[in-house]
Amino acid sequence: MTFALASLDDLKTLAARLPAADAEAAAGARARQNSLTKPPGSLGRLEEIAEFMAAWRATARPEIWQAQALVFAGNHGICAQGVNPYPQEVTVQMVANFQAGGAAINQLARVNGADLDVIALDLDRPTGDFTQGPAMSADDCLDALNRGAAAVNEGADILILGEMGIGNSTVAAALAAASFGGGAAEWVGPGTGSDQAGIARKVDAIERGLMLHAGAKGDAGAILSALGGREQAAICGAVLAARAARVPVILDGFICTAAAAVLHVADPALLDHCLVGHASAEPGHRKLLAATAKRPVLEFDMRLGEGSGAALALGIVRAALACHNGMATFGEAGVSEA
Amino acid sequence: MTFALASLDDLKTLAARLPAADAEAAAGARARQNSLTKPPGSLGRLEEIAEFMAAWRATARPEIWQAQALVFAGNHGICAQGVNPYPQEVTVQMVANFQAGGAAINQLARVNGADLDVIALDLDRPTGDFTQGPAMSADDCLDALNRGAAAVNEGADILILGEMGIGNSTVAAALAAASFGGGAAEWVGPGTGSDQAGIARKVDAIERGLMLHAGAKGDAGAILSALGGREQAAICGAVLAARAARVPVILDGFICTAAAAVLHVADPALLDHCLVGHASAEPGHRKLLAATAKRPVLEFDMRLGEGSGAALALGIVRAALACHNGMATFGEAGVSEA
Repeated sequence: MTFALASLDDLKTLAARLPAADAEAAAGARARQNSLTKPPGSLGRLEEIAEFMAAWRATARPEIWQAQALVFAGNHGICAQGVNPYPQEVTVQMVANFQAGGAAINQLARVNGADLDVIALDLDRPTGDFTQGPAMSADDCLDALNRGAAAVNEGADILILGEMGIGNSTVAAALAAASFGGGAAEWVGPGTGSDQAGIARKVDAIERGLMLHAGAKGDAGAILSALGGREQAAICGAVLAARAARVPVILDGFICTAAAAVLHVADPALLDHCLVGHASAEPGHRKLLAATAKRPVLEFDMRLGEGSGAALALGIVRAALACHNGMATFGEAGVSEA
Repeated sequence: MTFALASLDDLKTLAARLPAADAEAAAGARARQNSLTKPPGSLGRLEEIAEFMAAWRATARPEIWQAQALVFAGNHGICAQGVNPYPQEVTVQMVANFQAGGAAINQLARVNGADLDVIALDLDRPTGDFTQGPAMSADDCLDALNRGAAAVNEGADILILGEMGIGNSTVAAALAAASFGGGAAEWVGPGTGSDQAGIARKVDAIERGLMLHAGAKGDAGAILSALGGREQAAICGAVLAARAARVPVILDGFICTAAAAVLHVADPALLDHCLVGHASAEPGHRKLLAATAKRPVLEFDMRLGEGSGAALALGIVRAALACHNGMATFGEAGVSEA
């Protein structure tokens, strides 16, 4: 049964109805880690990742048979405010590049064994300019969210999320500011390559958007409709559908985390099954990681989006589980303990 | 032709006779990175790694067809000073575990596509207790170094180095202190799991060793013979043989970096073809990274050794080259530039 929301208001009460971490499976994974031929704790973060996977897959010996990488693309009315140096056609051009296999995400999904699905969301119908009105109607937003949910392969063992959309680092900064407070300037960075004047235009547009939509404060669905884009709503839907199916998620960088962070406004527990794949070089990402209490898997100064940092982190999760499942115990190997 | 040293004294003049980074290949790699369908620089550290590989493989489009993981094992007379909570038999038991495929390095080499070779160096003949005399004679040390060199597959495109040897975090701290100065306490940590009393024994043994072998200061070969172990000498030999064959190296954590750092005493340029795979949780590693001016690829709180952090980093290098070689250029993909 595919997960779908009937109303954006359901976000407020959803967490209690979705699966929680399986403490027994996590404890089983911890016990196994302590029996393996290594000093206890010596695989560091890899051990934590194995426990995380156990908790969400609800088995002490989780494996990755199928990994899905989902990249959502959207276009944004806010580009009318001159917030991005690239022309908006680049979104559709990059989607074609994804489909032809030429982008970074294609290579990273391939080397780490993820099946890539690219979902272009009405690229010829950008969202509204949020300095003039809401980016989306509640119905449009709900539709995009449910399209994101429907794109999730519920048979996968892990889900990588990414996005593409010219102008969407401005959307992300607006969502982050609306979700966690602070002025626009605290959340804005160069994105794909804005200069100082471009950054100033981003800040100005976001400040006007925040003022116009101040009433959305504290309401996840209202924030997402007012300031978000279709790919941001789709990411929220995919995060929720994955949770419903006990599929752990790897979020990507600033834009992807900002999208998912809207769910944090509804209930921080909605992101408990999510890792963040990397800390982006986009300066607002550090603040987002702090606000959502997430420690990134990798720190590589990447700032590309399209799921690239999340797909890179998938290789680490695979390595963590290879150790977890493949190593001998002290007893099996006949190795003396301390 | 297999690389071999005729004398430890040759370390002092070796750097000038070994291959250097190929600046033209690195520039070619940089130009290619700037042409790929992404904002320039947006793959961060992955771009730097692609350039590094280009410089050492001497081609703008380096690939990894063969990766070798080499783990050297040795036993240490310093264990007589009570520096390790595990019995010394664990070294041979862990070598058997490597050979049976049950250790962390087996899983990590497999998931990241490295051929693992384990070289046990006279495990029934521990080195001397360096508080009583030199750990090795110059001949023994040269022999271990050349065995390390001979183990390198010169046809590989990258080499992962690791070690195993009960007591060798004490050896590593002694080498680091002799190489870079500072008291023993600055370089000593818990290793495989020493308590405060065990750490105090490590510090005491190293202080006495440093005093006894103070004359070795500034002489890489003398430091290695006086305080090192066979696996440390073998790591030095493997680093040099790899350099001679233009095979880039990924060093592992504290113990592996401390071994290679002896070469830094001879000439810092001898480590130019080496990445450090991860920052170990063993506290001395941060100081070693600073002393050798190396930025680790990963930070995962690992402290296992046996090449585990280096093998994990191999997956990142593979991902970097997959992007470098597999991505479309702006021209190929028909994507507009800024």
